[in-house]
Amino acid sequence: MPKLDLPRGNAAIGQSGGPTAVINQSLVGAIEQLKTFKSVKKILGMRHGVSGLIKDELVDLGRVPKTQLEKIARSPAAALGSSRDKPDAEYCAKIVEACKRHDIRYYFYIGGNDSSDTCRIVNEMANAAGYELRCFHIPKTVDNDLMGSDHTPGFPSAARFVATAFLADSLDNASLPGVKINVVMGRHAGFLTAASALARPRGKGATKNGVPLGGPHLIYVPEVAFDQKQFIADVQRVYDAIGRCQVAVSEGVQDASGVPITTTLVQGLERDAHGNVQLSGVGGLGDGLAELVKKNVKTKSGKAPRVRADTFGYLQRCWPDPSPVDAKEARAAAKFAVSLAMKGERSASVAIVRKSSKPYKSEMKMIKLTDVAAKTRHMPPEFLAGTNDVSAKFVQYLEPLVGPLPEVARL
Amino acid sequence: MPKLDLPRGNAAIGQSGGPTAVINQSLVGAIEQLKTFKSVKKILGMRHGVSGLIKDELVDLGRVPKTQLEKIARSPAAALGSSRDKPDAEYCAKIVEACKRHDIRYYFYIGGNDSSDTCRIVNEMANAAGYELRCFHIPKTVDNDLMGSDHTPGFPSAARFVATAFLADSLDNASLPGVKINVVMGRHAGFLTAASALARPRGKGATKNGVPLGGPHLIYVPEVAFDQKQFIADVQRVYDAIGRCQVAVSEGVQDASGVPITTTLVQGLERDAHGNVQLSGVGGLGDGLAELVKKNVKTKSGKAPRVRADTFGYLQRCWPDPSPVDAKEARAAAKFAVSLAMKGERSASVAIVRKSSKPYKSEMKMIKLTDVAAKTRHMPPEFLAGTNDVSAKFVQYLEPLVGPLPEVARL
Repeated sequence: MPKLDLPRGNAAIGQSGGPTAVINQSLVGAIEQLKTFKSVKKILGMRHGVSGLIKDELVDLGRVPKTQLEKIARSPAAALGSSRDKPDAEYCAKIVEACKRHDIRYYFYIGGNDSSDTCRIVNEMANAAGYELRCFHIPKTVDNDLMGSDHTPGFPSAARFVATAFLADSLDNASLPGVKINVVMGRHAGFLTAASALARPRGKGATKNGVPLGGPHLIYVPEVAFDQKQFIADVQRVYDAIGRCQVAVSEGVQDASGVPITTTLVQGLERDAHGNVQLSGVGGLGDGLAELVKKNVKTKSGKAPRVRADTFGYLQRCWPDPSPVDAKEARAAAKFAVSLAMKGERSASVAIVRKSSKPYKSEMKMIKLTDVAAKTRHMPPEFLAGTNDVSAKFVQYLEPLVGPLPEVARL
Repeated sequence: MPKLDLPRGNAAIGQSGGPTAVINQSLVGAIEQLKTFKSVKKILGMRHGVSGLIKDELVDLGRVPKTQLEKIARSPAAALGSSRDKPDAEYCAKIVEACKRHDIRYYFYIGGNDSSDTCRIVNEMANAAGYELRCFHIPKTVDNDLMGSDHTPGFPSAARFVATAFLADSLDNASLPGVKINVVMGRHAGFLTAASALARPRGKGATKNGVPLGGPHLIYVPEVAFDQKQFIADVQRVYDAIGRCQVAVSEGVQDASGVPITTTLVQGLERDAHGNVQLSGVGGLGDGLAELVKKNVKTKSGKAPRVRADTFGYLQRCWPDPSPVDAKEARAAAKFAVSLAMKGERSASVAIVRKSSKPYKSEMKMIKLTDVAAKTRHMPPEFLAGTNDVSAKFVQYLEPLVGPLPEVARL
């Protein structure tokens, strides 16, 4: 092993993008590991990510007592504050300037693929300017859409919320039968919507004429073109078979030409700094699909069925009952990123590799920033089944990540 | 004590209206107590309430094994199936006929105020027809709007979901500051929306210039006239003070003349069999209020703030993490109703009476069906504070019912 030439200076940590239930586990994991890093003087927290860094809004994280850190680790959402800024070249130059100003030599950014891209640009600009700044990306996203990972910290906890919600809501739907549409987060990747499949009872007697007796009965993800006529026919078929129908649909479902269904149903949508249409928290997709069902699906008596729609919204990413696996891995991923810095790496991201499913085991792996930056992972074909379902392989993939769901029974 | 003249025959139990997380505790409590009632032959469950009863869709509940019953008790939503039917005189006559047909002498109906009214009518019609039928109402509603009770089974568990949701969502909102509007169930009574107040940190340092630092910062309930201009001014004031604002608003908020705000914002609303406008599961109120804020509230730079709205929907009534107090009381209320029948009462409803708050103690009390039938309880003035908040007295009232919330921390 070559002798390490580690610069001595401060470390900075930031949190970016939509928060998760375990993003603070990563924050606390990074702090813990940085405390063992002799080349690091101060551990600085960026208030609201890069937007706080360039305004010198920094917190001395080395002074936070251990008991307080543990409480923070268990709290959902970004304790440092998060940011939706997508830095351009000028903004990244300001970040490098701020790092120089605060003697920051180690830069850790917890976020999604946009964040890893910012890491990459900042690293390159600092190098070009002759300032030694080592940049590490710590993965986080409820969407599970980062390349190179078996799954992403934050996703299993959000999946746990979604599966629990569908489980309870399916019992509610069986109580008062009708069509129930639940809109789940997921702009481009359907993993979180697909997680609803965990709510279904499995094994003997779990289906009737090929229709699952417990919901969700239909699952629509952005990876499969959404056809309104097919949707109506699907709902009619399930309703005819069992007298009710629970639907899981991604907020980002789109038609064959790639136009989001939401935009054809709702007016005046907002775009964020990344140019993305704002889909979360808009009831429009669910209400629009409910209207489609009311107008086109018929009960045996020829009337419209009872139809309701819920949009799960931000609770998916912040519900304070994280998956135990997720809490552990989110902390481990951050510790691993710091350990890469301690080994002399100059820039990297971290991926989770699954070693086995039964019993579940994983380990962390170093990947390049460019392997994850600004790329989106989609559900692979083997996780999909037809145009309105997921495969048994997907359920096997997801089950060990989520933890046990409440045990329920029906008469 | 006079000698009891108890008719011998079957007992029937039904579940009605919107399900709750503990309505099956009441079902199982009734079954348990009925098993000790010597005058009862069979314990029959109505499939989907009265609609199943008149179609002879009955289940023999005496045969369900105890372990299965305990699993059912812990499951949310109505295990027998529920019904939204509101029986008229003709329908009630069919109910009496079905009771005669199945030798039903004891009739137990778990539901809200409409259900207790059905109990009353069925009891009166059976009496008038000379058929001895004893009718008991077992209270249930997440809305907490039944007369005569300290609170209603089902409400504490829904309140637990709402408080937990606001707690987590407030951390999310602090991570990415903006205006966040959460729409909570409650057509006429604001108790469930008011439950959001439990999410606030209390004690020293919990407010800044009179504004709570933790959300919800503003609470709007149907009991207080909602004024759109005042709402905009309220949000502006909170946003100016702390740079963000989390709002709790009942789906049923209405203006000074009693017109629901939703109807002025959303077209084509559906009405149920009770003539009520369908409010749950419609994203319109949240999205409409979000539009109001975007158009009228300004940040320091003169722009519109970041605004998002979520409608919590049916998860409020079925989330499978019930309040321990609620689970216990829901079972106790049903046992008490059966014990009234065993004591020779001919018709009654049950109310929960609070004996003390610290430590929390309650007991069950018999009330008349007419005390609860078709009446709605509202939040009393002492539970309200101004036009946009609830009182400390309300928080003291609610706290012991909900159980401990997750402990969270911020930097």
